[in-house]
Amino acid sequence: MSSPLLELVDIPQRGDARGHLSIAEYGKVLPFVVRRAYWIHGTNHGVSRGFHAHRNLRQMFICLRGGVTLAVSDGERSETFPMSAFGKAVVIGPGLWRVMSDFSADCILMVLADREYDEADYIRNFDEFVIAKCHG
Amino acid sequence: MSSPLLELVDIPQRGDARGHLSIAEYGKVLPFVVRRAYWIHGTNHGVSRGFHAHRNLRQMFICLRGGVTLAVSDGERSETFPMSAFGKAVVIGPGLWRVMSDFSADCILMVLADREYDEADYIRNFDEFVIAKCHG
Repeated sequence: MSSPLLELVDIPQRGDARGHLSIAEYGKVLPFVVRRAYWIHGTNHGVSRGFHAHRNLRQMFICLRGGVTLAVSDGERSETFPMSAFGKAVVIGPGLWRVMSDFSADCILMVLADREYDEADYIRNFDEFVIAKCHG
Repeated sequence: MSSPLLELVDIPQRGDARGHLSIAEYGKVLPFVVRRAYWIHGTNHGVSRGFHAHRNLRQMFICLRGGVTLAVSDGERSETFPMSAFGKAVVIGPGLWRVMSDFSADCILMVLADREYDEADYIRNFDEFVIAKCHG
């Protein structure tokens, strides 16, 4: 049986009379130290984003508000996961084509990454991605 | 002239036809690598949080939605900074007593920290904090 492409992670929540506090800590739910955090917000209706893979980057996706659908492919298999606030986070390793779609208007999608931005780490052409996988 | 207690940081925003993407990257706006991320959300009306200092921890506070007021003190001086989404982020070093208040109902406050959780790093008693500062 093939291993899943997406690694789903429960984010610890601490709720008390004050409200909620959620935590992603290295060595517990975070499998890497974070060198870049970015967040996608105010996404316009009908927009899909992503359409690339990474050669080395590892990322954790966390939906902080609203909802979004995350789809990944390794060139042969695909998986789709609907994300929402209070839902599971997703860890994505290298070599996965990803598309994010169905953003709710209020969606805030946080992405924690283990490397700084490096354009050379991106594969932005799907045919090139499939060929790179075949020769990987 | 005394140096400010709070270091204010502009978060780069990339807006295009798709929406917004905001970035905190190590070596640019992030002065440390992140080993723990936590976010405060769903805070109840009238609640204030914090009321502690850290012996070593460095943190970046980023308001992702809504608003909150951050107040810090070094035992002698105090500074207050109203945070809001699209506003400046704040870097806080060790040795600062901090209180967060005036959370809007929809506030999401992200905190990026350079160390894992360690209860021994907390000073939770203000008198102890002031004494620790005097003997620092």
